[in-house]
Amino acid sequence: MESLRIVLDASEIPTHWYNVVADMPNAPLPPLGPDGQPVAVEQMAAIFPMNILEQEMSAERWIPIPQEVREIYRLWRPSPLCRARRLEEALGTPARIYYKNEGVSPAGSHKPNSAVPQAFYNRQAGVRRLTTETGAGQWGSSIAFAGQMFGIDVRVYMVKVSYDQKPFRRSMMQTWGAEVLASPSAITQTGRDALARDPHSNGSLGLAISEAVEEAAGRADTNYALGSVLNHVLLHQTIIGLEAKKQFEKAGDWPDMIFGPCGGGSSFGGIAFPFLADKAAGNSPNLRLVAVEPTSCPSLTKGAYAYDFGDSSGFTPLMKMYTLGHDFMPPGIHAGGLRYHGASQLVSQLYHEGLIEALAVPQLGTFEAGVMFARAEGIIPAPESNHAIRATIDEALRCKESGEAKTLFFNLTGHGHFDMASYDRYLAGQLENYEYPAEAIAASLAHLPQVG
Amino acid sequence: MESLRIVLDASEIPTHWYNVVADMPNAPLPPLGPDGQPVAVEQMAAIFPMNILEQEMSAERWIPIPQEVREIYRLWRPSPLCRARRLEEALGTPARIYYKNEGVSPAGSHKPNSAVPQAFYNRQAGVRRLTTETGAGQWGSSIAFAGQMFGIDVRVYMVKVSYDQKPFRRSMMQTWGAEVLASPSAITQTGRDALARDPHSNGSLGLAISEAVEEAAGRADTNYALGSVLNHVLLHQTIIGLEAKKQFEKAGDWPDMIFGPCGGGSSFGGIAFPFLADKAAGNSPNLRLVAVEPTSCPSLTKGAYAYDFGDSSGFTPLMKMYTLGHDFMPPGIHAGGLRYHGASQLVSQLYHEGLIEALAVPQLGTFEAGVMFARAEGIIPAPESNHAIRATIDEALRCKESGEAKTLFFNLTGHGHFDMASYDRYLAGQLENYEYPAEAIAASLAHLPQVG
Repeated sequence: MESLRIVLDASEIPTHWYNVVADMPNAPLPPLGPDGQPVAVEQMAAIFPMNILEQEMSAERWIPIPQEVREIYRLWRPSPLCRARRLEEALGTPARIYYKNEGVSPAGSHKPNSAVPQAFYNRQAGVRRLTTETGAGQWGSSIAFAGQMFGIDVRVYMVKVSYDQKPFRRSMMQTWGAEVLASPSAITQTGRDALARDPHSNGSLGLAISEAVEEAAGRADTNYALGSVLNHVLLHQTIIGLEAKKQFEKAGDWPDMIFGPCGGGSSFGGIAFPFLADKAAGNSPNLRLVAVEPTSCPSLTKGAYAYDFGDSSGFTPLMKMYTLGHDFMPPGIHAGGLRYHGASQLVSQLYHEGLIEALAVPQLGTFEAGVMFARAEGIIPAPESNHAIRATIDEALRCKESGEAKTLFFNLTGHGHFDMASYDRYLAGQLENYEYPAEAIAASLAHLPQVG
Repeated sequence: MESLRIVLDASEIPTHWYNVVADMPNAPLPPLGPDGQPVAVEQMAAIFPMNILEQEMSAERWIPIPQEVREIYRLWRPSPLCRARRLEEALGTPARIYYKNEGVSPAGSHKPNSAVPQAFYNRQAGVRRLTTETGAGQWGSSIAFAGQMFGIDVRVYMVKVSYDQKPFRRSMMQTWGAEVLASPSAITQTGRDALARDPHSNGSLGLAISEAVEEAAGRADTNYALGSVLNHVLLHQTIIGLEAKKQFEKAGDWPDMIFGPCGGGSSFGGIAFPFLADKAAGNSPNLRLVAVEPTSCPSLTKGAYAYDFGDSSGFTPLMKMYTLGHDFMPPGIHAGGLRYHGASQLVSQLYHEGLIEALAVPQLGTFEAGVMFARAEGIIPAPESNHAIRATIDEALRCKESGEAKTLFFNLTGHGHFDMASYDRYLAGQLENYEYPAEAIAASLAHLPQVG
């Protein structure tokens, strides 16, 4: 009987991460300080350990994965590459659909791929306490889990709309020993200011980042960990695509198109970058890499390519990225992990240079796709993953019309077990599509910082 | 790097289930009608299809698994056999600890192992609608998933205490297209009677079974599906132990003791029976098989071995089993799947004849074990699984004292993603141990039906 899952042995867990910087046509633009000058590494050392900052700045193609990290990875990695046969049949498409199931991790998403090395490197640098932010709760639970693995205390600022919608993500973090606060909180200046402006603030990822950074910057014993956006996070996530390449070789197939949900960019970069290496080497010239974002937070498709802050309060260096403006406040859609005003510098530059594509999909279509996937394949996906599934299904339906037997591959970034309230609302007809008004985007873009 | 997971290929999914009846020293005692006479198969045909009833009555050692069922199984099976190395290290035990991770199924537990064939056999018999009950929600979501796989409509009576504690299990069933009602409901006579006696009834598995059976018996287009207790359910679950035997061979190890949580008996039977076959054949004479139940619902350790109804209203035939009395109302402890007044006939008889062991563990110790497991291995277990984990940890600690390097094996029946409210209460110190008073058990045992 044909296996629907292509699995690898623990010995096949990649030994190195892939750094896309080595293969980019142009070097990434440096982060800038408020004076418009490139930021020195030392300036970031208040919140990140040097071993992580070296990765952040590196242009080496291959970065070794420490043995201690691979030993934790093997609790769930290599993750399976799965063939969605029943979905293909339900769609009646000649396309072959594959997905990488990152929902098999302890925290239920791809996020531990970076949480584990970040906890390891901090521990190696003697740090015993981390702050972080979380949107959907996937990053927060991942760093809670990873902290537990290496004996590090963790405090998580959780975006309030998710804190309210997902109380059980909080329980999960607490089960792994972390402390969880709703953001905006009253214990940082950033949080108090936000509450003064709007006591009922939903919060946002940008705001929660500010809170976590403010605390880490103010405490000598505490560092900060970020779950997306930065180069080292995308680097760690390339383990997804690296494993997938081995698995496609075993399957005797190869993707024509790859879809990843895109918020900060770590799940898209993680699945896409290792395949981009082939394009850079002149192979797979027709391979298409598609970042899929929500129409309610469309940084790539509707934002400006400009220097902007990574957080809402302007604590971070300026990064050149597609952005909706650092004080853009996305609506409380349920794909909490995609509610970020910008996109990773690397994803932004590759998109700007035409090496990857982007498209935006509306909320209702993503849940429709998720339910269809659940009923065909059994797995209930995270709302973030539903964005990639929507785009994949749309392409599979185009293949049905054209008769093309394309190989489609998407990142099933996580399961939806902590998102059932969203499914409830979708099934009850209580969700809506939301397209951010152009004038509102223009308004927040008007606040972009002046550089230099 | 050593793999912590021993995986099999889809082609290694067993082709037959193992029927322990073939190897029991004495034939199982037959179910009896109210007149004390054995129940004819035809009498049960109102709610079960004949192909399932044949399995229920069979004494054949090996029963073929239909190809259509194996094709659905391969969505997640074979499930991994995992080595809990980090837990061993945390305990400092010389014991080797393994678990079978049944939480990888779509519904997150071992229950789809029987839901899928039950849906298949009903569909094969032309049935397009099923009723069932669910306690923790694991069985209900499994039959919702399985019904979706074969185009069968499903109505689930969900024990009210779980319905209230686990709203997201309900959403999960609805995502797979099932209808879910809190039990006791107002739409059956059983439910109305229960509400008349106590409008705030927590419900019980026995009561929900009565409701589902009442409806199925009264509708020609509808059959009933049970998630535990009956012979055919335990038969289907033997795929767990059968796969595990192949995996232990690959690992070059073999269990000395096997632990399964025990409510109705399907997860314990599923992991233990295939190993019992070796004992019956004179191999593995020292292998110990341990059913672990809660002190709050201790049917094996505190019940009577007697003929009793399988449900609370007396709709089912009488079965010889360890029982606390069919109108025993267990307290609302959080291991909803273990809140059943009796135990499977097969498990009961094997226990009575000394081939298996049983022990009862209190609630707080089970959650303590579950949190310890989560912090060591990453996986947050279902509260039912925590019973087996507690017993395994206790044995591993005994090994630490004695220096014995035993191989311990337990059934991780499911993940706890829908049980975080229970973990919340545990972490907040709001849970208690509960030992059912002997006089209360005696009182419900006084209502045992008179036979013949």
